[in-house]
Order: sequence, then structure tokens, then C-alpha cells
Amino acid sequence: MKSDVKRIEKELRELNEFNSTPESGTTRVLFTEPELKGREYVKGIMKDAGLEVTEDSIGNVFGCLKGTDPSLAPVWTGSHIDTVLNAGMFDGMAGVIGGIEALRMIKESGAGHKRDICAIIYTSEEPTRFELSCLGSRAMAGELSVEDTKNVHDKDGKTLYEVLNELGYDLSEFHRIKRSKGDVYAAVEMHIEQSSKLENDHKQLGIVKAICAPSNYDIIVKGVQSHAGGTSMEDRHDAYMAACDIALRLEKIARENTASEYTTATIGRVATVPGSVNVIPGECRFSVDIRDTDADSKKQLMKNLVSQFPDIEKERGVTIDIVTYNEDIPVKCDRDIMDIIRKHMENSGAEYEYLLSGAYHDSLFVGHFAPVAMIFVPSKNGISHSPEEWTDFEDIAAGTDVLAETLLELANK
Amino acid sequence: MKSDVKRIEKELRELNEFNSTPESGTTRVLFTEPELKGREYVKGIMKDAGLEVTEDSIGNVFGCLKGTDPSLAPVWTGSHIDTVLNAGMFDGMAGVIGGIEALRMIKESGAGHKRDICAIIYTSEEPTRFELSCLGSRAMAGELSVEDTKNVHDKDGKTLYEVLNELGYDLSEFHRIKRSKGDVYAAVEMHIEQSSKLENDHKQLGIVKAICAPSNYDIIVKGVQSHAGGTSMEDRHDAYMAACDIALRLEKIARENTASEYTTATIGRVATVPGSVNVIPGECRFSVDIRDTDADSKKQLMKNLVSQFPDIEKERGVTIDIVTYNEDIPVKCDRDIMDIIRKHMENSGAEYEYLLSGAYHDSLFVGHFAPVAMIFVPSKNGISHSPEEWTDFEDIAAGTDVLAETLLELANK
Repeated sequence: MKSDVKRIEKELRELNEFNSTPESGTTRVLFTEPELKGREYVKGIMKDAGLEVTEDSIGNVFGCLKGTDPSLAPVWTGSHIDTVLNAGMFDGMAGVIGGIEALRMIKESGAGHKRDICAIIYTSEEPTRFELSCLGSRAMAGELSVEDTKNVHDKDGKTLYEVLNELGYDLSEFHRIKRSKGDVYAAVEMHIEQSSKLENDHKQLGIVKAICAPSNYDIIVKGVQSHAGGTSMEDRHDAYMAACDIALRLEKIARENTASEYTTATIGRVATVPGSVNVIPGECRFSVDIRDTDADSKKQLMKNLVSQFPDIEKERGVTIDIVTYNEDIPVKCDRDIMDIIRKHMENSGAEYEYLLSGAYHDSLFVGHFAPVAMIFVPSKNGISHSPEEWTDFEDIAAGTDVLAETLLELANK
Repeated sequence: MKSDVKRIEKELRELNEFNSTPESGTTRVLFTEPELKGREYVKGIMKDAGLEVTEDSIGNVFGCLKGTDPSLAPVWTGSHIDTVLNAGMFDGMAGVIGGIEALRMIKESGAGHKRDICAIIYTSEEPTRFELSCLGSRAMAGELSVEDTKNVHDKDGKTLYEVLNELGYDLSEFHRIKRSKGDVYAAVEMHIEQSSKLENDHKQLGIVKAICAPSNYDIIVKGVQSHAGGTSMEDRHDAYMAACDIALRLEKIARENTASEYTTATIGRVATVPGSVNVIPGECRFSVDIRDTDADSKKQLMKNLVSQFPDIEKERGVTIDIVTYNEDIPVKCDRDIMDIIRKHMENSGAEYEYLLSGAYHDSLFVGHFAPVAMIFVPSKNGISHSPEEWTDFEDIAAGTDVLAETLLELANK
């Protein structure tokens, strides 16, 4: 079986046309017009490929090839088509278009398979609209109930519940989204690496050993708002300087962490109050995003940071508070599926290596109820979540070849 | 002569009613409705006090008591009535209301004086609307021409020129705003301290030795925008962490500066791009405000900071650029006026001390064409530019008593 690199490129480029910021990367936010049109476009491809298309109550889209034994649990592949703001055209989309191509290859090859094989669009892997990630796969894992959707708001104050209702999703069927152990035999997601290990090591494909999970917090530093000139350096309680102090300590702890294979810490959003040039900030609120392959290491890192707060509070005369949004649990990939992937990578002749996923993916939540594995393809200069994001179509095609062989083998187990 | 503390309180409280954020401190931005109404209110007080009210082409308001010798240069006092966002009710206003009260006392005392004595509202000491401070006194110093007003924009893109025109100011007379040396005999401004030295030293009044001048910059750090999880700590070029590094270095340099009596450094405004929780900032832009009593010390401080940029750029793989908005020159107060103030403080029995003004004031620009001095009254906990700003009315009255005696003595020289 051999994927069609031209078709992969064509479909990715066509999907990329559904974009609210064409002048500055790709932006496709959940249930906005470009995203709704993108969904229709992908459903069209699925149908053209001869897949049976269904959709659940949170908008997860399934395109399935029927197997010969309906009593067996299905094999899944898939990813997402929503983006962060001003992103690229590969993060998520490579796995959706590649997944459909893999099913098309299996179908066209005429090879029989016992289990159903489904290519999936998971709803809103990115937290762009509702500040909560992996809505579709989270609901599958039973970690987002229909009640929960009433407490998830977008920036306009609309709840996910309201939005789903308006779009005509049948929320009385919401409980059917949840999957239990045994419901899915195996799930394999292809994704861009979003880092530069493959590129640096001159490998075309990667086998993911573990998927980091994020912990997300806001840290709120309160000092004393006062005049930038009138308040001497000794007398000030500058919330922003304290925030910088915390930031550099966090960076140091993450850099020096040896308790796990991979740790990152990022401050992406920062706001000072009142935010005037000539006023010492009385408050600074900033986001903290921590990723780790190991749950204990991640906990320990935050504990280490927080243990330094009393010193900062005392030294700078500020108070520091934390709001916890989520502390998701990392997932180890399934050894058996990894071995099948490795075998097909070797057969294909592609250079490959094992690596970790610093980014989380829908597979993190699918991993709560099914054995999961991931195939990575290289990201140019390791850049993602940026208009600069790039992956060569040949590499996606190489990943798709391995994905197709892997899905077919799993579907006959 | 004795000021009326009840009237000072009443007038300050009435002026404070002109406020666009009554739920959160005082906000009175140049030529917005509260500010225009505030101007009318103060003009009314001036007229009631028997002062002759005039206004120049940039909205500086003069309330004058005529002296017996029109050939002599006048004596000035005054301050401002505009505020930063969510500020207090004393910064500027204490000197305007106190100045008018002083003129009322002189008039009511029947004491003769050779020189005119004027109480002034200087237009927009705060940079709130046009990101440029001291518009009125800057124009008096010849450092803001009618041509310059066409290049000064507010957030809506409106120029100061357009705004003045719309309000009916006669811009063909703009050249008359500028004063030359000799045009003003002496200028004495009363102001809240905006710091805590008087309070800490248990003094009611302060004599200002020098007024710090601000230098204002934006620093723009550019790194590489990328995925918060996918990009390892080693591979990232995080613009925000670099910005924090710069911030703490700036704080250290300002704290340890021994080249002058008083130095401050403040970062009040910070923005990360794209500002998403799960994206490493590719850019961070922040304001830098440096104050110093000494021009050379201030220059040296910035030079010291900039000299560290190549190390940061190399170590973090970022680029750092600077935009310079202004590098104003500090002013020393006039020894002779200071001596007169000291004499009247001693006569009044008030506890006083000499100090520096970390904040700038209109006197900074008036000091470019006239001998200036300032009287400070205490700020509770040193807080200003905040809803928490407070000064006891009795202290303003004590400062007003000294101001009245000082103005009268100067007006007879």
C-alpha cells in the first residue's frame, strides 16, 4: 500500500482555505464559520473515500470502514482540525487527512479486516474557544459531562451547551459519547512533532513513547499600585518585578528538572494592572503551562516553585495566589502497538526513532479508555502553533504508509 | 493669613465628582467630559475668589490677582487637574485648589503686592490621553509647537491639534503660549509627595531640592513563537523569559545605582505575542520608565542595561530593540525661593524637611524658563496614582499657608 502524496497535499491545502486569518497563518476556531465549513469539507472527503460518516453529540466525526466481524471492538485513528490563533496548516490536520488516506489505501487494496477501522475528527483539541482542551476526546473519556458543558464558557459568555444546542446536536444522546475500556481495540494517531528532535537527528518518522500532559494555572501577584517616580526602589512592592522573579525561578526549575525525561514550563499570557507606563503595577496575573512525561515529576516541580513563594512574598512585600485550571495525567503509549509501528517503519525503509510528545493530543484522553500509540512526522525548525509551522508532504505520506499497515494489522487481531 | 481647611476639603471633594470611574478611584482624562466639567468648576472657583480668568491656546487656565506694577514679571503657582486611570483625588488637584486658596487669602488679607500673582491649571500633566506628559507646561517651555500637536495622537488616532480645534481653541495664537526667561519671576507649585519620606520622618511639609525627569522607552524582545509543550526548554527562544531577565537586571541596576541621590526604574505595561496560554511568546514589548535627579546618572543607567543586551541575545537566541519616547532633563529648584519657603515653614511652626521629587511635575518644564520651587505635603503610605491615594486636608492647608506667604513675598520683590 502506498499513499498519494499529491492528494495529501491537495486536501491539506484545500482544508487550509477555511481560515479566519488568511493574512497571518491559519485560524480555525471551534464552531466558527471556517471550522464548520472545514468539517463539511472533511466529511465530503470521507464520503468520497467510501467511508460511513457519523457524528456524535459533541461533534466528533467518524468515517468508518466496516470490518467482517461486527462483534469486535474497532481500531481508531484521527486527530483534530481546529487551531490556536494564527497557527499553521499541519497541527491536527496532518493526522486527519493522513488517517482518511490510510483508510482509502486499505479499502483500495482490497485487504480484508475483521475489525471496523475509523478515521476521526476529535472536536476542539485546542483550548482556543473554551479555554479547555480536547473537548471531544475528553467527553469520550468521561471527563466532560453534559452538565459540565453548561459551565464551560467562551469569551462572549456563551456556554458549550448553548453552542451545541444551537447547532442542533442532540444533547439527550450526550451520554453515548463516553467510551469504556474494551470499547476500542487500539487507537493510533499521526501528528506533526511540534519539536525539532526528528529534524536534528535526521529521522523521517518518530514512535512516541509517552504523551506529556499539561497542568495549567494562573498565578496572581498582588503588590501595591503606586507612582513610578514618587515611590523609591526601597519603598515599592512591584507586582510585576515579583512576577518576573517567579518566571525566572520557574524557568530554572524546569530546565534543571532531572526527575523525568521531559519537562517544559511556559508563561504565555501576562497582564499588569493598571498597565500604565508611569504606574508601578499593583497586580500581575499570568498563565503557567507545565508539561511532563511523569505525573509525580510535574507535581514536584510545582511544589518546588510554590515552596519559594514565601521568600518572594517576604522579600518583595507581595502576596502570591494560584488558580488551578487542570492537572492532566501523562499517558504511556502501548508497547504492543509501538512494536507493530516499528516493524512497519523498518519494512518501509524510513529512518525512525523513539521520542516523547511534549505537546498533548487527543490520544492523551483516548489513552484513558484504550491502548494508544502515535506516529510523529518532522516539524521544520521544530516550530508549531505559528504561521511558520511546516511539515513536508512527503513525510506525511511516509507516516501515512506506516499508519495504513499498522491499522490493517491491528484490525485483523 | 490662615487657609480655610473646610473650604479646601469641600472644593477638592466637589472637583472629585468629575470622574469617569467613580466605582474605582478617580479618572479624569484630558478633554473628556469629566475633565471639561472639572475645568469649568475650577474657573468658577477662581472667579468667585475674585481672580481674572484667562485661557491660552492649549487650555492652560490662569486665575490672576493684579499687582500694582504691570511692568514686573508675575509670580505663578498651580498644578494640574487631569489624572492617570483609576487614580486618586489629590495628585495635581491639591496644588490647584491650594493655589487658588492662597490667592484668596492674599486678596482677603488686603496686603499689597507689586507683581501679578497667578494660579494656573496646566493642561494635562499626565500622559494618559496622548502618551506625552505636561502638554501645557511643555508648550510654555517651547518644547511642543503647533506643528508638534499634529503628530501627537490619542488611542483613537485623533491628534491633539484636531481635539484643540474641535474645542474652539485659537491655534493661530499657539505661539503666544511659549514663555522666555524673564517672563515669569518665580513659580512655586504645591503638590502631594507621592512617596513616604515625609510620613516616615514625621514631617508635615517638604521643600523640594530637585525634580526627577523621566526617560521613557519601549523594549521589544523578539524570540521564536512556538508550541508550549512541543518545544523543549533547550530549543526555545522565549521572548517573555528574556523580557523577565531584562526586567530583573534593570531593577538591580536601579537599586544599586550610587551615581545620584535618587533613581527609579518601572515596567508598567507588558504585552506578549500571541498571548496564548499554550504558546511560547515570540515577542514581548514592555515600557520602561526611568527617573533620576541627575541627567548623567540616568544616561549611564540605560547604557549599563543596554550593554548587557548582547549577552542576553546570545544566551537566549533573541533580539532586543529599543524605542525612545523621551529623555527629559531633571531640574534643580531655585535656592532663593527655597530659602523663602523655609523661612515661612519655620514661622508657621510646621515640621519640615528637604527632599527630592521622584515624580515629575509641570514645574519641570516651567523650570526651563523660570526659577521654580515646590512645597510637598505627605502622601499616606506613599501611595499615589491609585484609588488608595490620600493626603490629610490639614496638611494641604498647612502647605497652603506657607504657599500664600511665599507668593506674597515673591510678588513684592
